[in-house]
Amino acid sequence: MINQLTAKIRKTGAPIVVGLDPMLKFVPEHIKEKAFKEFGETLEGAAEAIFQFNKGIVDAVCDLVPAVKPQIAMYEQFGIPGLSAFAKTVAYCKEKGLIVIGDIKRGDIGSTSSAYATGHLGKVTIGSKSYYGFDEDFVTVNPYLGSDGVKPFIDVCKEEKKGIFVLVKTSNPSSGEFQDRIIDGKPLYEHVGKMVNEWGRELMGDAYSYVGAVVGATYPEMGKILRDIMPKAYILVPGYGAQGGKGRDLVHFFNKDGLGAIVNSSRGIIAAYQNDAYKDKFGPENYADASRAAVIDMKEDIAQALG
Amino acid sequence: MINQLTAKIRKTGAPIVVGLDPMLKFVPEHIKEKAFKEFGETLEGAAEAIFQFNKGIVDAVCDLVPAVKPQIAMYEQFGIPGLSAFAKTVAYCKEKGLIVIGDIKRGDIGSTSSAYATGHLGKVTIGSKSYYGFDEDFVTVNPYLGSDGVKPFIDVCKEEKKGIFVLVKTSNPSSGEFQDRIIDGKPLYEHVGKMVNEWGRELMGDAYSYVGAVVGATYPEMGKILRDIMPKAYILVPGYGAQGGKGRDLVHFFNKDGLGAIVNSSRGIIAAYQNDAYKDKFGPENYADASRAAVIDMKEDIAQALG
Repeated sequence: MINQLTAKIRKTGAPIVVGLDPMLKFVPEHIKEKAFKEFGETLEGAAEAIFQFNKGIVDAVCDLVPAVKPQIAMYEQFGIPGLSAFAKTVAYCKEKGLIVIGDIKRGDIGSTSSAYATGHLGKVTIGSKSYYGFDEDFVTVNPYLGSDGVKPFIDVCKEEKKGIFVLVKTSNPSSGEFQDRIIDGKPLYEHVGKMVNEWGRELMGDAYSYVGAVVGATYPEMGKILRDIMPKAYILVPGYGAQGGKGRDLVHFFNKDGLGAIVNSSRGIIAAYQNDAYKDKFGPENYADASRAAVIDMKEDIAQALG
Repeated sequence: MINQLTAKIRKTGAPIVVGLDPMLKFVPEHIKEKAFKEFGETLEGAAEAIFQFNKGIVDAVCDLVPAVKPQIAMYEQFGIPGLSAFAKTVAYCKEKGLIVIGDIKRGDIGSTSSAYATGHLGKVTIGSKSYYGFDEDFVTVNPYLGSDGVKPFIDVCKEEKKGIFVLVKTSNPSSGEFQDRIIDGKPLYEHVGKMVNEWGRELMGDAYSYVGAVVGATYPEMGKILRDIMPKAYILVPGYGAQGGKGRDLVHFFNKDGLGAIVNSSRGIIAAYQNDAYKDKFGPENYADASRAAVIDMKEDIAQALG
């Protein structure tokens, strides 16, 4: 799957992942009205609205980008109907040829981490049969519990040829509270980065490992150091756009082969029609076209930065 | 809710939480057969089997213990039907008067953490209406992303009078890889413990805070130190029983009032009928009675240890 991701990034020329993090306030009124008419102002109605919203965006951008990253929390808040919309979104994106990174940030120990890995990447055995649960291609993993939490994901990845992105340095302002604390002369995130590099060694694709890392665009200097510590890890870079990360901040996250990083934008793309830059040209009715325009602009911004 | 938890612990005399972490291998054949007959060897069949299994245990122990802790990963591995069984389990336990600690170990940033908090503890707004998603009473939270990840949970807890348990020192063997690393002369888990104490100050119940901590029974010496650092935090203690923690290890986790800690046992209770100690007396048909016996023995073990 990491080879497929690399190939798709080369083909599209866009090291971009679209964050499908739908909040109801991003969903245009006409979509909400239709969904609420059918299902009422219910969890089912909200779930239908966000799925239809996603579908429009996916149809509009699927030829431009290699991957999408649905953030499961945005679905989980609507309970079971919301999680059904998550599952439908994953399936629809795969139908459209997109690689799906489930942003689930799970992490537990032993058999519990195994259960998460099974549910999101692998197959669960029931009697004589086996089934995929959510069946994403990659998921994000929280490393706080150490190798016991990460290894079960790696085991499932080996079997399924799928991958993970381990949280190393997150894009948020308070990420430094624990991640930046100095241990043996180096910040915690460097220690985690080193472990990512080690975990990744046993799970290599052609040029990159199936074990990637999450490093926020908002911390480009740290990105530079982490790039060196984890040369074979694909870096998933959140924080571009709405969180303040700019194209020029991104250079440090890439390797000299022009690969090695994939940049996420969520709000900046899926709610582009609400942004000043696109509001007048595209109304809510054409929200998906606004998303397409935002992807094209982002692609250009990154291409310019990478020279 | 923390006041209710304390009152229930006093009333039952059992600082015990039953971990409802059903794996199919724990579920007696007669329950699986019945579920598979109705739904086939499908995700729905597995979900029905684990829900019926839970129901039996809950009926057998609900007068003995204050709380249960369903581990969502064990349900999530069965996809949407599994998560429906989780939701049904939460609702059933609450019907039976039990406090429900959702062991979800979620943690993200800003609006994403808010979405998790909303989905598991709070109400989501849809148009003019609002709905609970999973509606647990407490959830476990991963602190790796710092205050940005924890504060949104605290905001929802304030509104709903619910609580969280923040992972501080987990019970697994590799928890030390990051949690034990020395920062400014103290291990990371102590720094996290200090933050728990701070976060908890703004959310106090009568004697204890709504912000609790997870500290593994397998690390009693660390428990002692953390007990002092977080005097007002309820400590959720996993790792008793199957993971090796013993009654005598638990004293350090409690305060002088005999409160302040609640000890989890999962496999040791829910799969008691498979353990040598109960196998002969109770067969698979009487698995729930074996669970009841295991709870009574655990209660005694803890009472002896606490003197």
